[in-house]
This record gives sequence, C-alpha cells and structure tokens, in this order.
Amino acid sequence: MAIAVLAFLLALGRILSAESKFMVYNTSASIHPTKLNVHLVPHTHDDVGWLKTIDQYYVGSNNSIQRACVQNVLDSMVPALLADKNRKFIYVEQAFFQLWWRDQSEATKTIVKQLVHSGQLELINGGMCMHDEAVPHYIDMIDQTTLGHWFIKEEFGVTPRIGWQIDPFGHSAVQAYLLGAEVGFDSFFFGRIDYQDRAKRKNEKSLEVIWRGSKSFGSSAQIFAGAFPENYEPPSGFYFEVNAASPIVQDDISLFDYNVQERVNDFVAAAVAQANITQTNHVMWTMGTDFKYQYAHTWFRQLDKLIHYVNQDGRVNALYSTPSIYTDAKHAANRAWPLKTGDYFPYADRANSYWTGFFTSRPAFKRYVRVMSGYYLAARQLEFFRGRATSGPNTGSLADALAIAQHHDAITGTEKQHVANDYTKRLAIGYSEAEVLVSSSLACLVESASNKECGSPITKFQQCPLMNISYCPPSETALSNGKDLMLVLYNPLGWKREDIVQIPVMTGDISVHDSEGNNVESQLIPITDAYHKLRSYHVKVYLGRNAGEAPKYWLVFSVSVPSLGFSTYSILRAQGTGARPTLSNVSTVQPGKYSGVNIGQGNLKVEFSAAGKMTLYVSRGMKEHVEQSFSFYSGSNGTHNDPQKSGAYVFRPNGSFPIIPEKQTPLTVVRGPIIDELHQRINSWIYQVTRVNKAKEHVEVEFIVGPVPTDDGIGKEVVTQISTGMMTNKTFYTDSCGRDFIERIRDYRTDWELEVNQPAAGNYYPINLGIFMKDSEKEFSVLVDRSVGGSSLSDGQIELMLHRRLLLDDSRGVAEALNETVCVEDDCTGLIIQGKYYFRFDPIGKGARWRRSYGQELYSPLLLAFSEQDGNSRRSSGRTQFSGIDPSYTLPENIVVLTLQELDGGKALLRLAHLYEIGEDKELSVTTEVQLKKLFPSKKIGKAIEMSLSANQERATMESKRLVWQVEDSAEEGETEVARGGPVDPIELIVELAPMEIRTFILEFTEFDTVIYG
Amino acid sequence: MAIAVLAFLLALGRILSAESKFMVYNTSASIHPTKLNVHLVPHTHDDVGWLKTIDQYYVGSNNSIQRACVQNVLDSMVPALLADKNRKFIYVEQAFFQLWWRDQSEATKTIVKQLVHSGQLELINGGMCMHDEAVPHYIDMIDQTTLGHWFIKEEFGVTPRIGWQIDPFGHSAVQAYLLGAEVGFDSFFFGRIDYQDRAKRKNEKSLEVIWRGSKSFGSSAQIFAGAFPENYEPPSGFYFEVNAASPIVQDDISLFDYNVQERVNDFVAAAVAQANITQTNHVMWTMGTDFKYQYAHTWFRQLDKLIHYVNQDGRVNALYSTPSIYTDAKHAANRAWPLKTGDYFPYADRANSYWTGFFTSRPAFKRYVRVMSGYYLAARQLEFFRGRATSGPNTGSLADALAIAQHHDAITGTEKQHVANDYTKRLAIGYSEAEVLVSSSLACLVESASNKECGSPITKFQQCPLMNISYCPPSETALSNGKDLMLVLYNPLGWKREDIVQIPVMTGDISVHDSEGNNVESQLIPITDAYHKLRSYHVKVYLGRNAGEAPKYWLVFSVSVPSLGFSTYSILRAQGTGARPTLSNVSTVQPGKYSGVNIGQGNLKVEFSAAGKMTLYVSRGMKEHVEQSFSFYSGSNGTHNDPQKSGAYVFRPNGSFPIIPEKQTPLTVVRGPIIDELHQRINSWIYQVTRVNKAKEHVEVEFIVGPVPTDDGIGKEVVTQISTGMMTNKTFYTDSCGRDFIERIRDYRTDWELEVNQPAAGNYYPINLGIFMKDSEKEFSVLVDRSVGGSSLSDGQIELMLHRRLLLDDSRGVAEALNETVCVEDDCTGLIIQGKYYFRFDPIGKGARWRRSYGQELYSPLLLAFSEQDGNSRRSSGRTQFSGIDPSYTLPENIVVLTLQELDGGKALLRLAHLYEIGEDKELSVTTEVQLKKLFPSKKIGKAIEMSLSANQERATMESKRLVWQVEDSAEEGETEVARGGPVDPIELIVELAPMEIRTFILEFTEFDTVIYG
Repeated sequence: MAIAVLAFLLALGRILSAESKFMVYNTSASIHPTKLNVHLVPHTHDDVGWLKTIDQYYVGSNNSIQRACVQNVLDSMVPALLADKNRKFIYVEQAFFQLWWRDQSEATKTIVKQLVHSGQLELINGGMCMHDEAVPHYIDMIDQTTLGHWFIKEEFGVTPRIGWQIDPFGHSAVQAYLLGAEVGFDSFFFGRIDYQDRAKRKNEKSLEVIWRGSKSFGSSAQIFAGAFPENYEPPSGFYFEVNAASPIVQDDISLFDYNVQERVNDFVAAAVAQANITQTNHVMWTMGTDFKYQYAHTWFRQLDKLIHYVNQDGRVNALYSTPSIYTDAKHAANRAWPLKTGDYFPYADRANSYWTGFFTSRPAFKRYVRVMSGYYLAARQLEFFRGRATSGPNTGSLADALAIAQHHDAITGTEKQHVANDYTKRLAIGYSEAEVLVSSSLACLVESASNKECGSPITKFQQCPLMNISYCPPSETALSNGKDLMLVLYNPLGWKREDIVQIPVMTGDISVHDSEGNNVESQLIPITDAYHKLRSYHVKVYLGRNAGEAPKYWLVFSVSVPSLGFSTYSILRAQGTGARPTLSNVSTVQPGKYSGVNIGQGNLKVEFSAAGKMTLYVSRGMKEHVEQSFSFYSGSNGTHNDPQKSGAYVFRPNGSFPIIPEKQTPLTVVRGPIIDELHQRINSWIYQVTRVNKAKEHVEVEFIVGPVPTDDGIGKEVVTQISTGMMTNKTFYTDSCGRDFIERIRDYRTDWELEVNQPAAGNYYPINLGIFMKDSEKEFSVLVDRSVGGSSLSDGQIELMLHRRLLLDDSRGVAEALNETVCVEDDCTGLIIQGKYYFRFDPIGKGARWRRSYGQELYSPLLLAFSEQDGNSRRSSGRTQFSGIDPSYTLPENIVVLTLQELDGGKALLRLAHLYEIGEDKELSVTTEVQLKKLFPSKKIGKAIEMSLSANQERATMESKRLVWQVEDSAEEGETEVARGGPVDPIELIVELAPMEIRTFILEFTEFDTVIYG
Repeated sequence: MAIAVLAFLLALGRILSAESKFMVYNTSASIHPTKLNVHLVPHTHDDVGWLKTIDQYYVGSNNSIQRACVQNVLDSMVPALLADKNRKFIYVEQAFFQLWWRDQSEATKTIVKQLVHSGQLELINGGMCMHDEAVPHYIDMIDQTTLGHWFIKEEFGVTPRIGWQIDPFGHSAVQAYLLGAEVGFDSFFFGRIDYQDRAKRKNEKSLEVIWRGSKSFGSSAQIFAGAFPENYEPPSGFYFEVNAASPIVQDDISLFDYNVQERVNDFVAAAVAQANITQTNHVMWTMGTDFKYQYAHTWFRQLDKLIHYVNQDGRVNALYSTPSIYTDAKHAANRAWPLKTGDYFPYADRANSYWTGFFTSRPAFKRYVRVMSGYYLAARQLEFFRGRATSGPNTGSLADALAIAQHHDAITGTEKQHVANDYTKRLAIGYSEAEVLVSSSLACLVESASNKECGSPITKFQQCPLMNISYCPPSETALSNGKDLMLVLYNPLGWKREDIVQIPVMTGDISVHDSEGNNVESQLIPITDAYHKLRSYHVKVYLGRNAGEAPKYWLVFSVSVPSLGFSTYSILRAQGTGARPTLSNVSTVQPGKYSGVNIGQGNLKVEFSAAGKMTLYVSRGMKEHVEQSFSFYSGSNGTHNDPQKSGAYVFRPNGSFPIIPEKQTPLTVVRGPIIDELHQRINSWIYQVTRVNKAKEHVEVEFIVGPVPTDDGIGKEVVTQISTGMMTNKTFYTDSCGRDFIERIRDYRTDWELEVNQPAAGNYYPINLGIFMKDSEKEFSVLVDRSVGGSSLSDGQIELMLHRRLLLDDSRGVAEALNETVCVEDDCTGLIIQGKYYFRFDPIGKGARWRRSYGQELYSPLLLAFSEQDGNSRRSSGRTQFSGIDPSYTLPENIVVLTLQELDGGKALLRLAHLYEIGEDKELSVTTEVQLKKLFPSKKIGKAIEMSLSANQERATMESKRLVWQVEDSAEEGETEVARGGPVDPIELIVELAPMEIRTFILEFTEFDTVIYG
C-alpha cells in the first residue's frame, strides 16, 4: 500500500474510531528535561492460561470464572491507537497475539504493522508467554522466547528491546543475563520481589539496578533491571478499565461533577510519591493489569485527558510512553546505578507468605514438561537429519505446547485443574505428532532412504511414553507373539554415550544382541507389585483401557550409542541354550535383620542401617555416612494472626512430621550383573527403590509417592532429607533455571538483613538441575528429574520437596486447593507421582563434572523406539548405527547442542552451549572449540551467521545497539576479565565457547542432501 | 460530503473498525416467509438517572455504584454498525443521545446521520427519557416527548415509529393512545405487566394486542401493543456484554471448546419456546438490557455468528431487526389481534409485590415536579407574549429538567437519594432561569415596551417559590420597610378566572387595591406556629440562611384575572382609617366541645363531630355524612414465606393502624369574610387545616405530615381516608396520567380472574388529577395536588397515600431504603410534606365539571409576582391589566391551551386540548370551536399546520402512514362513532375539538409585533 493511501487511512481511522470527542486533547508531550516525567505505559497482562485455558481467554468464554477476553483487547487496541498517534500500547504474550493475528484481514495487518513501525504499538518481552523464572528449564525458556521473537521478526521486522516479566513470582539470574542481556534486551522490568527487599530498596531508591546475573559473564551480560514500587497496576484511583470504579476525569463544564483540578492533584501527588523512591526525574506508571483494555477506548479517553490537564497544570510532565522510551530516558541520565548480583528468590509478599510451594506444585506435570522438553530437542534433531517435510507431522504443536507450558501459571502448578489438564492435553497432542515424526525419521534413517524417497518408510517404530509405569506394548507383546524386537536408541548428545536400558518384558526366554549380532549381557529384574499397580491403574486412567497382562521383568542391558546418532539392538526369542538374561538374585530381608545389607558391586557400595535407612556410601575410597528419610510438612490452614494457608503458590507449614518406615515391612534386595536395587515400602503410600548401576558412581533413588492421605483433614507436603556428616556452614548451591549455580546461605540474603519468619519456607529455592553442598574436602550433589523445591535446612543436609497435596486455597487468585487426583470414570484418588533423584559425593572441586555431564544426560535421555521383526526374516539391509556428525568427531565433554533445527530454505538453527561455569572445573571450565564442519559432514556450510540467543538478529547488530550502563562505587574493580569465544572464521568454521557461553548460529548450507551414511 | 466519499468512508469504516475477524459471516438474512423468524433487536436501556445521576451515567463516573457509561455505548456503537451494514441498533433516551451528539465532530455526525437514514440506527420512543406511565402528568409526557422528537426531526429529519416503554412499572391508557397513536407510533412495546396477566396471555398467545386506550377515540387511536414474554433482556444464555458469562459462539475449529452446534441448538430451542406463546411466525429477541453495549463489538461479534450459523442450520431464520421491522412483519400477517382496553395497572411481579408504593414515593419531589410543570406552561406563554429573546434566560433548562424528571426512576421516587437530589437541583436551576424570564417578561408587559426595547425593564419582579411554607420576602419586607407592594397575577388559562390569593404579611396595617384603585375586601388569618416552624426550618434547609422574623398573617383576598393575562393589585400601607383587612375571628374549641363546630358561610358548610372528625357536608341542599381520618400501614419487613419488603417501589403493608387524634388538643376555628378554616393537630407529626372558601363549593384540606416517626423501627405509609355513606359497589374511577378516567373495581381485573393476595396494595392505583366514586344519586370527587397512590378499599370510602417513610429496601435494585430526610448541616430529620387535596359532592353526572375545570386551575395556579413600589411616587404609567387574547374572547370552559410556545423564525407551537371525555358532561362533552384569530389578536396567522402530538410531522402525513390493524371477534361492533374535529379552514382558522381531543399546530405569523395592548 502506498504511503499516501496509508496516511489517509490512518487519518480516517482517527475520525472513524470510537474516539470522537469533539474536544481535542493535547497528548503530544515528550520528555521534559527538568520536570518530573510520568511515563504512562498502557499495557495489559494476559496470562497464557491460569483460571481459564488459553483458548478460553482468547475468545472470552468461561467468563463466569474470570471476565477476560484477549480478542477484545487486541480488537479494541487498533482503533484506539489510530485515533491519536501519540497513544502507545505494549503487547507481550505472543501466544495470544499470534492467535489474533491469524484472524486479521490483510488490511488490518497493514495497519497494525504501521502501528508497530511508528512505535505506537510495541511488542516487548516477545516470547510466546511470560515464562516463569523459578521452575522452567533454560532450554525451554530459550525455545519459547525464540518462537515468539521469530514471529515478531518475520511479521514486523522488529526485535523486542525490553524484558517484561511483571508477574512471575521471583526473578532468576538466568532470566536477567541469558533471557535478558543475551537476547538483546536493554532492560528488564518486574513486579514481584521480596517485601523486605522491596521496602529497603524503596528507602534506598534502589528498585532500579544494574543486574549482573552471570558470574561467568559479569558486565558483558548485565542489564538495567527495574522492580516496580508496588505491583504492575496503575496507582490507586487511575484504573480506567470499562466499568472500573476509579474516578474518571470529568472535564465537561456543562455537566455536574467537574473534577479536573481534583484529578490533576491526585495525579501529581501519586507522581511525587513515586518520585520520592525513584532515581532520576522519570517514573513509570504501568497503566493496566491482567486482561485489561477489553475496551481500550476507556483507558485512552482518560489518559488523553490526564496528559492534557496535568501538563496544562505544569507541575509534572505526563506523557504516553513505553518501557523502551523509559529505558532510554534512564540511560540518558548517564549516571551510575546500584549493582545487583544473584537473583530475587525466594519471593515473599508478606511475612508468612513465601511463594516457595510452587517450586514443587503439580510434580507430575512438571515432570511431563521436562520429559517433553528433552524429547522436543531430540525430535528436532531427527527432523533435521531426515530432512523436514513440507507437510505431515512436525514438531510445531509440541513446540507451541511446550512454549505455553512455561507460562508462570502453567509449569508453576498455580493454575486451576482444568487449565492444567489443558496444558497436558496440548503436550500430549504435540507429543503424538512429534512421535509420528520421530518414528518415521528413525525409519527413514534406518532405511537409509533419501529425503524424497522417505515419504512412507516400511519400518514401523513404536515408542513407549508410559515406560515409567512399566507399560510398553511393543516390548511386552513382540516377544510373546513370536516376533523379535528391534530397538533403536537415539542419543541427542554430541558425545558417545554408554548407558543402560530398561524395558518391560513378559518372558526371560530371550536374548539381547547388538547391531553386529553379538550377544549383550542383560539382567532380568522382577517387576514388583508396586509397579503392577501403577501400571494397571494408570493405563486405565490415561488410555481408558485395560493394560492387559503385566510384564514380568525389567530387562536391563548396557548400550553404547554414537554422538547425535543411534544404535540398534535386537531382542530375540531365545533359541536353544544360547545366552539368556541373568535373572537377578532377589532376597528378602526381614525387619531386624537389615544391618549390613548393602547394594553395589562396582566402585560404589551403599550400606543400610538396622532401621533400613541408607547409611553408608563407599566409593573410590570415600566412605561417607549418609542417611535418607521422609517427612511431611502439614500445610497451614492459617493461624489466628495470619490467615495465610499453604497452597499452590505459598509454602506455609505448621509443623514437620517424620515418616517412620513401617516396622514389619521386609526389604527386598535385588542383585545382578548390571544393577543392584533395594526396594523399600516406606509406608502404605511411599515406595522407594535405591539403585546402583555397576558402571556408574552415583546412587539413583526412585520413589513412588501417593496418594498422599488427607483423610485426617490435613494437607501434606512430602519431603525427603538426605543427611551427611558434612560441615556446610549454612551454605548450599542451587541452580538458576538449570544453568548457573548460585550460592545460598540459610537464613541470609545478600541484599538485606533478613528477618526470618519462616525458617523452612523462607530457605526454599527452586531446583531444576540439582543442589549441592560442600565442605573442605568434598562435595555432595543431588540431581533431580524435574523442577522441585529444595533447601539445606541444617548443615550437611539436603531436603527436596517431592509432592504436595493441600486442602485449602492460598488466596492468590487460583481459588482452588492444590488437591490433584486421577480418576477412572468417577472414582478418583490422590495423584501418585513417581520419579527419581540421583546423588553422589565427589572430592572438592570435582563435583561439577557429574552435575554437568550426567545432568545433561538426564535432560536428554536415550530416545527408544521399537520395531517388531519377523524372526524368520530378520531385516539384514538398512542402517544399524548412525551418527549425525562426522564419525571421527565428537563434541567436547563440556559442549552440548542445545538446538539443531531445520529452518525454511534449508537453513539450520544451531545453538551450542558450554556446560560449565567459569572456575567450576579445572579442565572443563575452559574455552573450547567446536568444528562446525565436522558437525555437518555431508553438508557444506555456506554461511554461519552468529545470532542473538533468540536468533532474531545478528549478534553483532545486537552488540552494537546494546546500551552501556554504569554501576555505582567500585563494583567494577571486583570484576575479572570476561571470556567470550571469538568471531568465527568463515573458512575454518571453528566456534569457540567460553565457560557458560551459548552461541547461536543460522547456518546456510550449499548442499542439501540430508542422507548421511554413518 | 459527496456520496462517493461517504461510501468510501463507510467501506473503510468496515476495515478499520475493531471487527476485523477475517472470517466473513453472512448476516444478510431478512424475513423468511414460512420459517420462524427470530428478530434480533440490539438495544440498550439507559435510565436517565437511577442509581447514578444522568451525568454520572453519561460519563461513566461513580461506577462503584453501578458500572455504566452511556458514552461508551454510543461511542462503540458507531464503528460496530459501520463494520457490517446488516447490523442494526436502536437508541431510545434522547437526553443521553443529545449529550453525546453535542460531543461529536462533524465527520462523526455525518456518519451517524447516514446510519440513521440507512435504518441501521433507529431512534425510537424518542422522548428525552422513557417516562413513567403512572405518576407523570400527560402534559409533562407530551412536553418531554416533543423535546426529544424535535431534536430527532431537526438533526436527522426522521420521526420515531415505535413506542418502547420497556421498563416502566405498568402501562397507562394515555401512553397507549396519546403518547402512542397520537404521536404517530405504529406499535408500543413493554416489559412489565402483572404476573397473573402475563401468565394468562402467554397461555392464550395474547401478549400482543390492539390496545384502544381511549374511550373517546376508540379505534382511531389504537395501537399494536406487545408485552414481552419475560423482561427486556435476551433469552437466558444469550447475553453478550463485555465480560458477560453467556457462552460465546466458539467457531474456531483450531481452538478447543468449539460449540457451534450446541449454541445453534440453544438458539433454536429458545426461539421455539417463544414461538409457542406468540402469534405469527415472528418473535422478537431484545438483545440487550440496562446500560449494555458498553463495547458494542462484543454483542455484534456473537450476533453475527449466531445469524450465520443458525441460518446455516436452517431450522429457524435469525435476522438483525428493529421493532419497526418486527411491527411491519406483524402487520403484514394481515390478521386480527386480541383487543385490549383500559390499562395495565397496577403492576405486580410476584404475589406480594405490587409496585403501587411508587405512586406516592417521594411526595415532596412529586409535588415539586407538578408545581414546575404548571410554571413551565405559564413561563412559555409569557415568553411568547414578550417575544423570545435570542439570548438571556429562557425556559430551556427548566424544560430539560422537567423532561428528565418524568423518567421512570425520577418522578417515581425509585432513584437513590443523591439522584433525587440531582433532579431537584436541575429543577431548581431551571426554575431560577425561568423565574428571571418570567419576571422580566411581566415587567416588559407591564411597561408595555416592545420586544426590542425590553432588554432591561425597570420594574423588578420577585416571586415566592417558598410561599407554601409562608416564606415570601417581598410580601414580608416591602410593607414593613415603608414601601408599597405591587402584585401581578398571571392566569395561564384561557378563561377569565376568579380566585383568591393568600400571601404572608408582617402587619395588618395595610389595604388592598385593584388596578383601578378600588379597595378590595381582604382577610387576615394568623399564621400558626405549625407554619412558623415549617418556615424557619426549611428556609434554613433550602436557602441556608435564617428566615428572619416570621410574618404574622396570611393576607387573603379575592382576585379576578383575564384569560391568558394578568391583573395587578396593590397592597399599600394603610393610611388613616381607610379599609383594612378583616382580622379573622379565631376561636379555640376545647376537647369535648367539638360537637357542632362548623365552618363555611357560603353554599358549603362542614360540621365536625364530637371527636373532631369532619362529619357533615352541606351544600346546595345536599347533606352528606363524611368522615375523614388518618391511618398508617406498617411497611412489611418481609415474612417467613416471602422476604418482600415494602419499599420505594413495592407497597407491602403488614397491618393498618388508625391514627387517633390526640385527645387533649383543642381545635382552632378561623372565620372571616373570605375563608373559614379549622386547624387540627392530629398528632405530633400531623397537622391539618380544613378550609372552605366562601366563593367555592369544595372543601380544601391542607396537611402537614412528618417527620414520620420510625424510632419504633417500623416504616410507615401514611394514608388518609374519606368515608361517605355511598353505596359504590366496589367501583371507583382514577385518572390515567391526569387525563382519562378509568373505572376500577376492587379485587377485580377486566382481563383475567384476579387472585387476590394483597387486598390493599393490589387495589391501589395512581392518581394524578383525582379519584371519584358514585352511587345512583351523586358523585364524590377528590382532586390532588400531585401524584399519589389511592384506592377505594371499601364502598363509599376513598383512601389517599400521602407519605411514605420506610426503613428497608424492597430489592428492586435501588438498594436504599426510602427514608427521606432534610438536614441543617449534619442534623437531619425525616422529611415533612405539606400539601392539599380537595373534595366535593356533586349530583350524578355533574361531577366532571369541577374535576375538569377546577382540576385545570389546580394544575395552572395563578402565577404571582411582586414588585416593591415607592409609596410616594406610585407608578401611574404602565399596563395594569393584560390579556394575550382578544379581550372580547375567552376560550370555552372545556378547552385549555396546553402549549403556547414561540419557535424559531417567529413561529409558534400551539396545543389546544378539550378537557372532557365523551359522555362525561352533558354540556361540555361536545365538539367545541376555538377561533385562532381571536387567540392572536395582534398577529396575522399565515399558516396553521396541524401536527402530530409531538409536532414532529404534519398530522395528515402521520395519518396517511398509520398502519391499520384488525381486532378479533366482534369487538368492532361495540364501537360508537368517533368524533374528531374537522380540518381547519385556512381562512376562518377555526379549530374544532371533539371530546378529549388535543390538536397541535405550528402557526406561522405574518406579523411579528408581540406587544399587545389589552
């Protein structure tokens, strides 16, 4: 459309829009050099699911639960902005914006693009959702942000400048530096920090800081970060939603109740109050809140008037603004700001209201998200290797489902149950589609077919998403119906992997062979009744059918898989007297006879005490006392002085109660060539398996917890404690979104003198990857399989909260008790969770290697696919082993491929990450090279353009635009030189990665053949 | 604006509007000949004041009381209609529309005019407000409707076709025939009729009828009238206000919760349900309710979808419609409809919920409106006679204030107190302006100055709006500070008038003279303490100042005033021994001695019983026993079975308690040459004066009631009963809006078999002019000074409810108890009311004359203005007597000038009304002539164009367009020939008026001199 026509159209828009007050307000104010500038930032905060599902929020259904319709917001925003070119609006949640965009006509799109280009409409933050910062994994945060940023780039050609995490419940270091500075944001604003911290910062005018979230990157990844004085709503009385109760500006002298002077006075008073706690002559007013601007006109009509009359008054300067304009104004002040390091966890909004319960809330959903996250990473790799099809199944819906699952009311567990169900449904749908893609990609790769030939491969692969409850139809049936079973194991990591595989089988009359036909040692472990029950109940629950006869054994065997590739194994009906799996030796130890029971035949041995508690850990000469136990906190129902209850958000215990293992229950000890296990029924609703793999030097603890009983009317939050004799001096370390470890000190905050009100809840931190502690000699690390809350509440001890079942709502809006159940028809029982954690001792300075490398293996487990084979005509053709990279090459141990994804036009997105922080490991915390050519042996890389983290702009462009900020005092002095990998030589194509560095490339290939012969 | 540009603009509007869903819905359905047609009528019902003031509703302030902003409705309606030319909307309340219109730019006005002309926006009903039908006076109804209709005509060139009284609490005959048929409406729709009536009509499919509201006019003023099946909201579940909870139509197959078929089924089911109680294949859905369409887009988005999918489904035909389209469809059915006569009073929505309390609620406000109404009529006449000034004070703001005071939550008393205060304030402001106009007009006329010369007349007139509490500064001070007093008395009636005047004076040392200097007989009546208290307290309350020394006497004298003119009287300081007023003979009758006390020295005498009750009425040979007493109903606080309370709307007594006059209080008897009075203190809060004027043959009863005590925790509704010995056979007659009398039969309804639940409340009717009953020999009539509720609860008895003070809300939304107080600063006491009623016996067939003629005098009292004069230089020049009409002419006794108002361009609006119904009076219920030439002796009438009642179209045009309707059965047979005045000969200019006829003319004058020498 020609500019002239567009201009005319915009002019007409002003006439035609609902804003037709004949009076013309002067809304043109820009920044005033000396007056107090009040930046009015019209905004809406649209939760990507919370009390309603995302779709319900979008279309405005289910309004009896919450009056919210995002379609209204965006529909009404357009004419409101057209009505006055000075008006501005920001929009944040791309999941909604994209739904809306899809519905718009080309004419509307043209107008909206013009609004974006003129700066009237600014798309900020720009991920699909406003992700939480405590419980998402950083890979998921990157992916969901990238999805949104790409859309914005593609449709509007712009890159968001501002981090706008106004609602999440505390703020992470990873958000500040990685999803902030590293995506090119100039600033980062948020609403929720600890009430004590906030009070001090208001007093010291230090709500606005320069935040260096990364020890490794220091000032090179710092960001201007502003916490709001209260929340993200307007000052009291300036709330102009349709039907809102704030006094409107009545400026029609011919009507009664004219109140212009009164409203101007209110405005000035609120501005001055905020100026008193803010540096510089700029304050920002967040003019909006959750799902507001349903009828944008109502806000702008009043804001127009306020700007007009306040500026006529002249005491302060009011202007339409955006966080970008505000940030530039702060930057232009050219002053030094307080320095902030670490993070803003945990978050308490009142003395007994620590929002540390949500670190664990909905543990099954948190695990599901983690599993899907790893699967999505692997699926994209396989999609890339096979060559992305233009139609048919892809990873798109899994990507979308995972993206919105990162929302701060999704993975947090703070949504209503029906909304949690919606997220789960979306993940399941996304998974189903990705599963088809993965199966067919594996089939294509196995069949060595080219991209084009591989429309419908012959080999049919099946996968087993319910393997965790010992349900795997192909492995159960194949061998029992006269077929053999081919097993493909895909390794998404860049290094060769030795691992063990564990699948349920109906019979031990089988043998396991590698791709060369060699017999592979294997072990049969009887599946216990606890698993049979899990299996039969949950197959009914989730698939709505009977699980059928239960498999008898876990078949366990060791496997070896190449980098970014697969191996195949065959499981055959045993013939003759050939090698069969070793049946485990199972012994039952009666109560009172426990003493000295031990498992572990390799470098690691675990002994148990007479009470059946794990007690001694022996590994490579280290001999440590360790004691593991369960207890629960009873959730507070509120006290006389404070009605705060423990709930989905808030952890407020009113007592801690040890769970003593039942005295009459025997221990079961399972021993075999690969794995030893010790099974314990702790009580009627806790079952635990302690497992030692001969080839590994950590302990794996598998737990089944639930249904948590509440028939005593008491909500319970179930924790496990692992106690050692270490002198840890109140200090422990937890990860930030699965990435950087941050030092935590019990009952202490770096930024203020902590008043301790909640000795447990106030010391809880989110754990995504792991938690560790150390003394002068050693480290003790625990890795987790999902996000959980945890702490070290006494020296030498670590506590993880595994499950929560509560009976009351904690008054933060969700208005439901966190009381998860699963139902077969109408018969519901409390949710049972099953999961694992892993622990290990290391000599001091040596723990990172396990935490980082094994941690990454936990995130990216081997992807298993099964194919039945006719035993009589075993497939001899086809590839039995595959590596996506040069077989002579492997990625360094400290490097991982975060993303390998085919883009349009045969390009690829590649994200490489250094897994180690600076100083974390002597050998591995070093700058390391990756040879791109070796990564893509069958392709020729034409160009490797380094991008910002969200890949929406070239890294160089981003760096050139980055605002430079000064910090107060001598903060600079403490900083050591920051290491960053250098530029990539376009010929050599070697990428250097410094510790913690993540580098993002868009690769352009000049050869497109995607069939690789490994 | 050229048509092409406009079309382009409209097309763009569609693009730019918020409605930009890419999906295109087919909304083009029109009427289907055979299917069930569901007429979707988007509407909003915007109360012109209720819980908030009109201004607060308009701008959307005070939203904590009610979430409502009319500006939003109208702002958002425009783009919503532009977005799809099939969409339609009706707007009703012109008071709001005019506020909005004033704010619009020319561009918007052009668009809105186009929307009106295309029929997308239809302005219906069209008065300033949706007036009530029980308590307003028909003259006020005409005036407020005219104001709105003129505006619509002037701005849009259209005339509303539809009566839309959807919310008023029962429906009047006058509304149906006079404000319906006579303003040219083709139909009339409403929501509230008695629940028993409704049930029967649904069953019989007779909600839609042909209503003949006038006995005099019969079928010539009939109208198609439709009562809604429920209320005026959409069917349950089809309520699409922003944030409403009804399920939206989710038709996006790519989102969850797709529900198109479900919603279509709901729609069809609701349509069929309504069809089952409705004649023809047309049903109307009122898609909206109070203050809805705040964001019109939310409704139209869903309605578009419903029309699209319902018609795709095909079982029924859904269309955007208006009441006009619906009416035409009903008419096109060419069938006979049930006949309805009488009215729809009283209204009960449940068994114990008779909305008959509001007939009396806020009696002081009701009186204030009535006084202002009469004043407005007179002021316009004086404005006409003087010649309307182009600037300076006029009657506009009084017109506006009176117009909105007719709203069904204004004069009804069913608004919140602060809103009642707002109406009162507006009336006071309007009065103040009109008062200046009246004073200066009178001065001009007195000074005989021409229009142009009369910018600032010398004579300063003062008026006494607080005369009712004996406060009249000019009459009080003039004579005491050495000045004489000139009194001008203006008579707005078209016939010469003999009356008495009563003004407070400080001294009896005065004399009264007519304009020829003749001494006029006068009487002094001591002002009693009861009035001194009223005066001093209320002057403080209303004027915020001390009233000063109280006047000692009422000075009473007889006056004679010409038609539409004035007389002047002088009150001089008495000189020498000349004639002074006669001091009344005042005697006190001690308790026990009452027997035989009587007043009245003319044709009428009233005797009192030993108990102090009026007991015998003697007039011209008639001798009737009559007993008058007070009692109160205790307002119900709800019962176990029904929580309904007595409140502003609902009269629900839980008992009736006689008020026995206090035994120790003496009677005071006042006698004089002009007036006799009997003063009684009934109890500490009721004071009564029974008054007989020697020249009149009715009894005037003046009451002071209040503060009604509630310290016993009981709300009270105070009534007076007047009992006679008449055998009235359950039958009595009450007026409809002050115009037609309707027969009422106790415990009986014409239209259905009444189940009697509330023997008092269910027999109450609104009384504006009066109530009467008759037996075979005589009639007993009572006239009132304002709207009150009344009944005849036993034969021969009449009851009027005078005051109500209640302590609980009656749950109809106002959410306040009707507990009126007046305050001096923070010291508040219950509202005291003061007022009068009048009664009289007449021989059978003779009562109408008094009711009609004296009733009109009560509506249009003499307008008094005072001017101080220097006694030493009495003004000798100037006009002392004036008549606006030819001095040789007087209007016939059965004719009144309802409106005489100067219009732009020297035109005038003239409304002449015949005061008598057909058959009401032998001599006066006849077609009567008015000679227009004699009415305007100094002007030449160029044209006299007969108009519709609201003067927005020529009567002939209106008649030519009128839809002809058929009624069922042989209803036609009973009809007698209808009399109507014939056409007006343009030369003779004689207007014939048949009984009850009101004829409206716009007169064009060819001479403009407005100075008349009488």
